[in-house]
Amino acid sequence: MTLRFLTAGESHGPALIATLDGLPSGLKVDLDSINADLARRQSGSGAGPRMKMEQDRAVILGGLMGGHTTGAPLAMMIENRDHAHWKGISVDPFTIPRPGHADLTGAVKFGYSDLRPALERASARETATRVAVGSVCRQLLANFGIEVGGYVTSIGSVEANLQSIPLQERISIARKSDTGCPDPSASQAMQTLIRETTLAKDTLGGIIEAVAIGLPVGLGSFTQWDKRLEARIGAAILSIQAIKGVEIGPAFENTRHPGTSVQDAIHVENSQLIRPSNRCGGIEGGISNGLPVIVRAAMKPIATTLTPQSSVNLATGEGIDTRYERSDFCPVPRAVVVVESMLAFVLADALLEKLGGDSLSEMRPRYENLKKMRLGD
Amino acid sequence: MTLRFLTAGESHGPALIATLDGLPSGLKVDLDSINADLARRQSGSGAGPRMKMEQDRAVILGGLMGGHTTGAPLAMMIENRDHAHWKGISVDPFTIPRPGHADLTGAVKFGYSDLRPALERASARETATRVAVGSVCRQLLANFGIEVGGYVTSIGSVEANLQSIPLQERISIARKSDTGCPDPSASQAMQTLIRETTLAKDTLGGIIEAVAIGLPVGLGSFTQWDKRLEARIGAAILSIQAIKGVEIGPAFENTRHPGTSVQDAIHVENSQLIRPSNRCGGIEGGISNGLPVIVRAAMKPIATTLTPQSSVNLATGEGIDTRYERSDFCPVPRAVVVVESMLAFVLADALLEKLGGDSLSEMRPRYENLKKMRLGD
Amino acid sequence: MTLRFLTAGESHGPALIATLDGLPSGLKVDLDSINADLARRQSGSGAGPRMKMEQDRAVILGGLMGGHTTGAPLAMMIENRDHAHWKGISVDPFTIPRPGHADLTGAVKFGYSDLRPALERASARETATRVAVGSVCRQLLANFGIEVGGYVTSIGSVEANLQSIPLQERISIARKSDTGCPDPSASQAMQTLIRETTLAKDTLGGIIEAVAIGLPVGLGSFTQWDKRLEARIGAAILSIQAIKGVEIGPAFENTRHPGTSVQDAIHVENSQLIRPSNRCGGIEGGISNGLPVIVRAAMKPIATTLTPQSSVNLATGEGIDTRYERSDFCPVPRAVVVVESMLAFVLADALLEKLGGDSLSEMRPRYENLKKMRLGD
Amino acid sequence: MTLRFLTAGESHGPALIATLDGLPSGLKVDLDSINADLARRQSGSGAGPRMKMEQDRAVILGGLMGGHTTGAPLAMMIENRDHAHWKGISVDPFTIPRPGHADLTGAVKFGYSDLRPALERASARETATRVAVGSVCRQLLANFGIEVGGYVTSIGSVEANLQSIPLQERISIARKSDTGCPDPSASQAMQTLIRETTLAKDTLGGIIEAVAIGLPVGLGSFTQWDKRLEARIGAAILSIQAIKGVEIGPAFENTRHPGTSVQDAIHVENSQLIRPSNRCGGIEGGISNGLPVIVRAAMKPIATTLTPQSSVNLATGEGIDTRYERSDFCPVPRAVVVVESMLAFVLADALLEKLGGDSLSEMRPRYENLKKMRLGD
Repeated sequence: MTLRFLTAGESHGPALIATLDGLPSGLKVDLDSINADLARRQSGSGAGPRMKMEQDRAVILGGLMGGHTTGAPLAMMIENRDHAHWKGISVDPFTIPRPGHADLTGAVKFGYSDLRPALERASARETATRVAVGSVCRQLLANFGIEVGGYVTSIGSVEANLQSIPLQERISIARKSDTGCPDPSASQAMQTLIRETTLAKDTLGGIIEAVAIGLPVGLGSFTQWDKRLEARIGAAILSIQAIKGVEIGPAFENTRHPGTSVQDAIHVENSQLIRPSNRCGGIEGGISNGLPVIVRAAMKPIATTLTPQSSVNLATGEGIDTRYERSDFCPVPRAVVVVESMLAFVLADALLEKLGGDSLSEMRPRYENLKKMRLGD
Repeated sequence: MTLRFLTAGESHGPALIATLDGLPSGLKVDLDSINADLARRQSGSGAGPRMKMEQDRAVILGGLMGGHTTGAPLAMMIENRDHAHWKGISVDPFTIPRPGHADLTGAVKFGYSDLRPALERASARETATRVAVGSVCRQLLANFGIEVGGYVTSIGSVEANLQSIPLQERISIARKSDTGCPDPSASQAMQTLIRETTLAKDTLGGIIEAVAIGLPVGLGSFTQWDKRLEARIGAAILSIQAIKGVEIGPAFENTRHPGTSVQDAIHVENSQLIRPSNRCGGIEGGISNGLPVIVRAAMKPIATTLTPQSSVNLATGEGIDTRYERSDFCPVPRAVVVVESMLAFVLADALLEKLGGDSLSEMRPRYENLKKMRLGD
Repeated sequence: MTLRFLTAGESHGPALIATLDGLPSGLKVDLDSINADLARRQSGSGAGPRMKMEQDRAVILGGLMGGHTTGAPLAMMIENRDHAHWKGISVDPFTIPRPGHADLTGAVKFGYSDLRPALERASARETATRVAVGSVCRQLLANFGIEVGGYVTSIGSVEANLQSIPLQERISIARKSDTGCPDPSASQAMQTLIRETTLAKDTLGGIIEAVAIGLPVGLGSFTQWDKRLEARIGAAILSIQAIKGVEIGPAFENTRHPGTSVQDAIHVENSQLIRPSNRCGGIEGGISNGLPVIVRAAMKPIATTLTPQSSVNLATGEGIDTRYERSDFCPVPRAVVVVESMLAFVLADALLEKLGGDSLSEMRPRYENLKKMRLGD
Repeated sequence: MTLRFLTAGESHGPALIATLDGLPSGLKVDLDSINADLARRQSGSGAGPRMKMEQDRAVILGGLMGGHTTGAPLAMMIENRDHAHWKGISVDPFTIPRPGHADLTGAVKFGYSDLRPALERASARETATRVAVGSVCRQLLANFGIEVGGYVTSIGSVEANLQSIPLQERISIARKSDTGCPDPSASQAMQTLIRETTLAKDTLGGIIEAVAIGLPVGLGSFTQWDKRLEARIGAAILSIQAIKGVEIGPAFENTRHPGTSVQDAIHVENSQLIRPSNRCGGIEGGISNGLPVIVRAAMKPIATTLTPQSSVNLATGEGIDTRYERSDFCPVPRAVVVVESMLAFVLADALLEKLGGDSLSEMRPRYENLKKMRLGD
């Protein structure tokens, strides 16, 4: 792996930290864009009251000089603004694990008697650092004309109909939508569903699509199992809290059709190889084929519900209902930017691998000279 | 990663090689089991004529003494029995890429003018080495009472109904079935569909479920993005040729339901924590929770079809139809063991991480002392 | 690798950051010890004026609750106290590379026209984060009775005579010495040499020995090239700024003697295997043998000298002498703790690998049950 | 890491295997060169009788088509020709560990009662695979005008005087010398010493220098600890059996001199930056500076001696002398090619990182455009 990152920090600790190692020098990093992406993670239908308190801002502690990367690792800090409120306050031990969370598995794995450390680190709060990392990767990709975006295709049982909307439009409409869904009528139905579900003290999940447009051919490889682009994307997406399924293009849907109807024919037009369809989600044989990479992520409904669920008090051994911890009702709209971010990270890594190089100025001519889907190349 | 492997070799080269590094010493390796797993990869409905020629046998070149591992890397070779027929024979360059394969992307990435190297290495022939690796991992897991199995849940539009069949039974029925599907009536419908599709010169995909039963709590972690068990399983499964989607439990289905109906309640019975359901697929917060891990993989229909597809002759630039390369019609039954194998690899790796240790005898008492889902632990 | 860390930050940036991932839960982290180690990096004979300005203090931003690790990554920040003085001040571009530094290679590699980014990140200032990381690793090792220490064995041409001083004593004497050298008369000669060399506007290097006492047998492995303990220690030590040579035990000296005189005989005493000598530096066949691990590191004289050296002004192309950048005269005494830290990191990593486990309480009984150098084990 | 390899196999097993993953496509691999390098590992003064039996030949099982790499992993097999003699023959358990070997540490680590598995895998026989790997890396480097060579600088107490012999000449003279030492009078003294030591039933070690000529500037990095070229070279060299010390340039010698006398001044001549000396061994700030990289490796005397050494019979608990296992008397001349090989591997990896790219034809123009040590670049 050329690009790598580690995150650290807890939900109510002083700060979250991300260190992104492996960037080339000469990349102009726009802090406002990072903060705008962080804001996207904090707004949208279905957010709980928690979200109102934080206004995430990234502070860059290393790796930049004069606003440009130097090749050194980028260190970003996001302060937890309500840490001040919690500091020093003693909190009762948390001993009733919530089904679907890391509470119980974390306790058994790490030997916690108070489950708080599991909540604090396993929480989706950590995704703020992913967004900061992904935002920088996105800026790197943008230098090569590659755009990464995303949108919501379903929430609960409400599915969008996006057939007629081009990818780029889906992205731009979604950015302005509270649900993140580019289909206006579905979006309205989603909002109704979210409202009703919230009143019913229940929660919702859904499906997010992230896409990358403008990729070169040749990222990833079939030569060794762990180099396949699907594998690398899959790991990154499934590493996101509450994401439990992923497909490249409509992979599950494709299984229901015969082979001849799910392949993407190859046509020639003016010495250019054209693919009229994209059922493969932009990847063939583990390698990007120049079509948009389309990744679909299944996000489970939030496990923390206002409606109590059966659990146990680990301190006493009694069966008992879960208590409510402040949480979202529907995290799907806010998670779009997280899925985009992890996709951007994988693609930036794969692009750096393909181009090599230690500076943007070294990478640019190499990029220009990449083989294309043209006869003669 | 504690356990790692590399594979090498081409479909029509002299042999395939797998090197599996990181096994503890003292593991009895049963070559017959490996060969039985290799045989499973070669039989089942929908196999093409190619399959008849090979009878894969693993030869162990390193890492074993007296039938037991020594802690040294295990090297396994599977000879390509028809290599003799091909050796020295000159073959016309292959210049018409098949949609859905690595032919075109491989050519652009690696600069091939003859596309054969892409076919040779990207082909599912390579999965034989994965099966050998997975078979050894499975033998390691078996020492700790962990069983990994799998079955087919759908082929094309035919879906099995498995609700009433316990996991272990699904596995054992599937082993005796030509389709790998434990639901007898669905299995029959699948066979009919395969026959019809073959006659129609078309191909089929489907969905495979792999499960691991008897896992301890605590494999994987939420502490860093790349340690989550879902991420690691996802990468391994999506690294398999033709697998383009993966979910842990019924993740895509879960997105359509409200939170309260897709969680797995925690009950107490005789100081034991019981989970009456398993919608989470055995993983909570990135960590195994002791329930069976259930992984669903979407396999696309074979891209090589007897029905020609639109393509181009890269040597001449003319639009032209694909020519048929010997291939399967429905690879799904044969891929079950491959999916199982990659799951077994990830779980063996995670178990070694949890237990540490350099020999089975060092690992065993550690395993006995692991915390369980019991009050007081 | 079980344990991993990334550092970030520049010498005159706001802060240095280290993220240490892979610690077990339940480790009490003593911040005072970390700060004491940081102080050791800042004091000793031969320090330049720069050292007076900083008083490094680590702040922990993540991974601790109630003073104990949780299994989550530990994030540590060390603020650069004089950053305030530099912030916003415009500095002339630095264009005259200093021989022996990263100035010129960094410029060519990353395309800098102003060489400051190379100075900022390549500088030994970064070793403060290594010390913080190593200090935590040392605390982990201490839980298993393993002590890591170090001392200076030579500065310039002055060599200590340590034959008669036991290892543990060498460490404790060195801690109280300005030169870090446990031989009092050599220490005095070193101080004289440092004083003279400073007056002569020159600089000094030397040799540091780091030792680990109380290690179990069995860390590292011969089974694969990159697992040998020598290799892992070698990489860690040679990753330290200005360290260009490393040996395990007196390896270069050993090459001059016949085989029979440099082996460590095996004796039996009361069912215990005893090794009367330790010419192998505590490692045989890539694996720790229970004797103290002894690592010797060659540190080159500081490249920045008050005496000007021939260089070139890259902006103008003129040959020109180097200008002085504030620097040490003899960094050797202050580097002892850095060498110790990197050794502690590798050994903590190898110990975690051997023991596995997610918490100290899981690791402890496993440690007790490790095989020893006893007959019957 | 872009390039990676795993080896497998035991000294008396059927074969040794190396899998080298990450090569670009289009590299012509010359099997004769590999075999010539393998032969160099088998000849030279001081070899024991064992060497006469084997004539190592590499067989390539994967990764080549038409004699050129395809981008797929290269699998190489070296058969153990005397395996046939050993197969099926029952051998008494080996229970008397030899000091200096992996016998005892391996037994404690892996729980062997018969120590043979340690001998079999820890033995220097494994270095044959390193040589095969290194030979291919060397061929890759040669495409970019980079030459890797080596020679012996000392054996026992006999040191060569090489000051007046240019690097390239040292390499070519050494290739024709039985001792691998380019200084004829030292070489003669070495031969005498080897003869005498063999008669005295003792063994010898020595120092090997490996050099790489023609490297571009910019391999390795100071931006993260594990990227420094010294660290990566150090790990590779110290991973070689019996190598216990390594230095970049004369690092230990440099510690004895003041800073001004061990730096390499920068001069300008015709817009070219010139370095009249190379005390830094070709690396500054963790990055190659275009001068030859010079690596010195300390090889300990062979631990297996005809003269018995004190040990213990682990089966009985009795103190007992070691028994002789067939071995070399002085492995130093034969190890030159092993040290070269590991250096070639690291440099090929670092070059691939710098250039990126999936084929030689993609890499070549990138190489031409690298910045050089020229003003204006």
